[in-house]
Amino acid sequence: MSAGLEGLRDALRQFAADRDWDQFHSPKNLAMALSVESAELLEIFQWLTEEQSKNLSADAKAKAADEIADVLLYLVRIADKLGIDPVAAARRKMIANAQKYPADKARGNNKKYTEL
Amino acid sequence: MSAGLEGLRDALRQFAADRDWDQFHSPKNLAMALSVESAELLEIFQWLTEEQSKNLSADAKAKAADEIADVLLYLVRIADKLGIDPVAAARRKMIANAQKYPADKARGNNKKYTEL
Amino acid sequence: MSAGLEGLRDALRQFAADRDWDQFHSPKNLAMALSVESAELLEIFQWLTEEQSKNLSADAKAKAADEIADVLLYLVRIADKLGIDPVAAARRKMIANAQKYPADKARGNNKKYTEL
Amino acid sequence: MSAGLEGLRDALRQFAADRDWDQFHSPKNLAMALSVESAELLEIFQWLTEEQSKNLSADAKAKAADEIADVLLYLVRIADKLGIDPVAAARRKMIANAQKYPADKARGNNKKYTEL
Repeated sequence: MSAGLEGLRDALRQFAADRDWDQFHSPKNLAMALSVESAELLEIFQWLTEEQSKNLSADAKAKAADEIADVLLYLVRIADKLGIDPVAAARRKMIANAQKYPADKARGNNKKYTEL
Repeated sequence: MSAGLEGLRDALRQFAADRDWDQFHSPKNLAMALSVESAELLEIFQWLTEEQSKNLSADAKAKAADEIADVLLYLVRIADKLGIDPVAAARRKMIANAQKYPADKARGNNKKYTEL
Repeated sequence: MSAGLEGLRDALRQFAADRDWDQFHSPKNLAMALSVESAELLEIFQWLTEEQSKNLSADAKAKAADEIADVLLYLVRIADKLGIDPVAAARRKMIANAQKYPADKARGNNKKYTEL
Repeated sequence: MSAGLEGLRDALRQFAADRDWDQFHSPKNLAMALSVESAELLEIFQWLTEEQSKNLSADAKAKAADEIADVLLYLVRIADKLGIDPVAAARRKMIANAQKYPADKARGNNKKYTEL
């Protein structure tokens, strides 16, 4: 894991220990919390056009940063509880994605790899 | 941002540029993709007990790592498009959380801060 | 509840009883399944423009019908387990929404009621 | 569609027309709103045990009814915009589910049909 995420992981461990919250932090519950926070990020964009989503107001951008933070925190936490290194997993996934979506076939195309 | 996430961010930029995919990567669309991947992680746990979620089979753990990777990749990508540093935002959020959930009031308690 | 949803509710009760699945159908788990199915509906639209989402291919429309069905089934099931009548709740909500979003203030406006 | 859902569909059409909101109600946007509301329902249960989720407080039950209402309203609305009858789709899905999950093979089993 990268230094930044390791720092978050350790801070989250301490935070939970200080509050006796490990009892609530099953992977099942953390996956729920992660989905809830992702939806709070989604909510910011639901009535905006794509163009508007590229030009958020300062308020909306601050709110987005807050929700991105929540998603990252629960992601680091569930990965820790499952014994998974998220950055290493993401690197492996990018290699797999490069094979599923060869640049020449996928160029300018929004189809799923199963339909390319 | 941490070195690990910066590396992912740069690789994602290159990946999208090689495929002419920036046209699809509005923050609105990326927030949708992030929610979809979070739900794919959630799906792994939906019929498991909390106890079972702590003891995944090797297959389920590999699947979880894959979905955690997808969530992280879209999270890094949307943060990049919005000009947000996710690790810095997460650190700020942890400071705010420590104030919302003082250890002595929150200990062993699963209530939301507004109900503490 | 309407006759149509009552029929689905009864069929779902029988379906679960026949398979001894009530043990898995806690409201917590059903809420997870509902979110997962909502995200499968969301996935259909994630890379489409709004305009494209109004003109789905026959394949995409059939897939959307399938996911809408799944969402409705889990919604009827969780409402049954919680003892909630979803149609009555929706009618109450529409009355509340009419007060939160007066037509003259909300016309052509995509703001949340707290910002009107 | 059942009488109850047809009534909601018509009321939602009028509600949107009165506010000039059809411009925001693309299937893409409505799918986002549906996912957001599903996650608000999910949030109620995220830190509860399955047992606790079966015995909600009066406050939590009222909140759940509210979120179930929101999910149903957006579901009826997106189905209307796509020209899909949700109850007919759900009936078709139950027939398909009965074939995917034969009672004798699925009894007491929380595995996905692809793993039965």
